[in-house]
Amino acid sequence: MGGRIMTELSQAAVERIIKKAGAERISADAKETLAVLMEEYGTFLAREAKKMSDHAGRKTLRGADIHMAAEIFK
Amino acid sequence: MGGRIMTELSQAAVERIIKKAGAERISADAKETLAVLMEEYGTFLAREAKKMSDHAGRKTLRGADIHMAAEIFK
Repeated sequence: MGGRIMTELSQAAVERIIKKAGAERISADAKETLAVLMEEYGTFLAREAKKMSDHAGRKTLRGADIHMAAEIFK
Repeated sequence: MGGRIMTELSQAAVERIIKKAGAERISADAKETLAVLMEEYGTFLAREAKKMSDHAGRKTLRGADIHMAAEIFK
């Protein structure tokens, strides 16, 4: 079995998202799997957004950088 | 300005993900934007995974359902 994978996202938050999507019963494994995938997606977008802010010569990452990263890789 | 958009994901968790991705200074707007996009992605995968578990005649959403949804829509 092993312990659960550590993610920045809480299992409770991910569970709420899955319940809102219509599932009533959810295995612990499903929550962990979705948390990992959401975090991978967020990390990918954040890295691309960081490149955008560097390119713009800014030190602060802005919402517009995230939007541009999402626009390019959708 | 307006209040912040409500997301299931905490701004703190999203901030940690962005910092790990290399950004030092992050606007509140960037955290909010990434939280919304991550949540949209999670909701999409959860809805598709729910279809997979329904199709398999199960009442419990499993990690394998999430994996299959991610596999199909990657």
